[in-house]
Amino acid sequence: MSGSAVGDKIRKMSSRQQIPGPTVKRLTLYLREVDRRLAAGEVRVSSRQLGQEIGVTDTQIRKDLSWFGQFGQAGVGYLLDDLGSRLRQILGKDRTWKTALVGAGRLGQAIMSYGPFAREGFEIAAVFDADPRLVGTEVVKRRIRPMADLDRLVRDRDILLGIVSVPKEAAQVTADLLIDAGVLGILNFAPVRLEVGDRASVVTVDFSARLEQLAFQVSLGLKGSIDVDE
Amino acid sequence: MSGSAVGDKIRKMSSRQQIPGPTVKRLTLYLREVDRRLAAGEVRVSSRQLGQEIGVTDTQIRKDLSWFGQFGQAGVGYLLDDLGSRLRQILGKDRTWKTALVGAGRLGQAIMSYGPFAREGFEIAAVFDADPRLVGTEVVKRRIRPMADLDRLVRDRDILLGIVSVPKEAAQVTADLLIDAGVLGILNFAPVRLEVGDRASVVTVDFSARLEQLAFQVSLGLKGSIDVDE
Repeated sequence: MSGSAVGDKIRKMSSRQQIPGPTVKRLTLYLREVDRRLAAGEVRVSSRQLGQEIGVTDTQIRKDLSWFGQFGQAGVGYLLDDLGSRLRQILGKDRTWKTALVGAGRLGQAIMSYGPFAREGFEIAAVFDADPRLVGTEVVKRRIRPMADLDRLVRDRDILLGIVSVPKEAAQVTADLLIDAGVLGILNFAPVRLEVGDRASVVTVDFSARLEQLAFQVSLGLKGSIDVDE
Repeated sequence: MSGSAVGDKIRKMSSRQQIPGPTVKRLTLYLREVDRRLAAGEVRVSSRQLGQEIGVTDTQIRKDLSWFGQFGQAGVGYLLDDLGSRLRQILGKDRTWKTALVGAGRLGQAIMSYGPFAREGFEIAAVFDADPRLVGTEVVKRRIRPMADLDRLVRDRDILLGIVSVPKEAAQVTADLLIDAGVLGILNFAPVRLEVGDRASVVTVDFSARLEQLAFQVSLGLKGSIDVDE
């Protein structure tokens, strides 16, 4: 499949009805439980069995999965292998996501050096910066491209995600450029709320909000490790 | 009050019974609503009125606030000014939090340059690094201290929060050093789960998990801006 065909497929998929947030969270729980059972050598599971460990009713599981068409068979349950593949596909964990990074300053360089991205299926396929002193140089072993090349490279390489690590004044215009070039999701590190309407998904990484959360926890006497996802 | 007296007060407060997570979330909603009403010139509010806008029952509000002793008066409600001050105090928003940053590499430098911290009441009071080439130099206008000074400086300056931006191999030992020196909360940027037991609070900023969340959202066709706190 050509690069742009992959993008078109995901674009088409993205246009369907919106899935509720709690469903998304549960799907990741289902996948974890399916993988656990597969690792234990199991082959088949009923909705009721699947739900038992994670505290979800079989009705809820069937309702959640019904968003994505026909799954399993009444009275027979699901083949774990099939269910795992479908969940991985639904959650976007079955492919490598090409990503454009914009902003190769201190934060951008820290992101480029971040080990887990590649392991989790993310590839930084192009890096851009507006600073003529950086453009053309290699930073963290990556060639920095001028902003003028962004539209063409994002299209040619079928890049679907963008990482915005520019100063906050430049964040909105950067997001607009990425979306215009075809990016569907933006990971935003700038301390500003991006306005994207229904043109894209945005996840903001807000260092301040995390430090505030920590201060709350300390003030309130909460102890232990709390990941932002929990 | 001397530096260490402030720390002792917070330590004492932190040892009381643990507050449930959903209560913490609602307290921040209450504070936002109180501030909105204060800005509108209101003076007094009942539990019922307070709950109406944010979809929480008056019983729940009274139960949440009862964790923190006596509030308001039956039949009269709360003075918004008092309630706001108490909530700010409970949530740790009434003081400046002194913070030690460990790890002055690319990510540490990006964090030092992060504007919103100071605005939100966080002061980076000391910066440490294990690299002898960095120690003693100025990075982003801050003097880098050797790890050997960490214990003394954290105690002397009554630093209560630590930011860990070291490579993942060094994250746990760094966290242990900070906690041994008296730090109560750690903002962890290393891609590793810190084991702190009940000695401290930890919030992990996991770039990979955020990018995964974005990929889910794109796969599932969710659009718009979704902050990690929502």
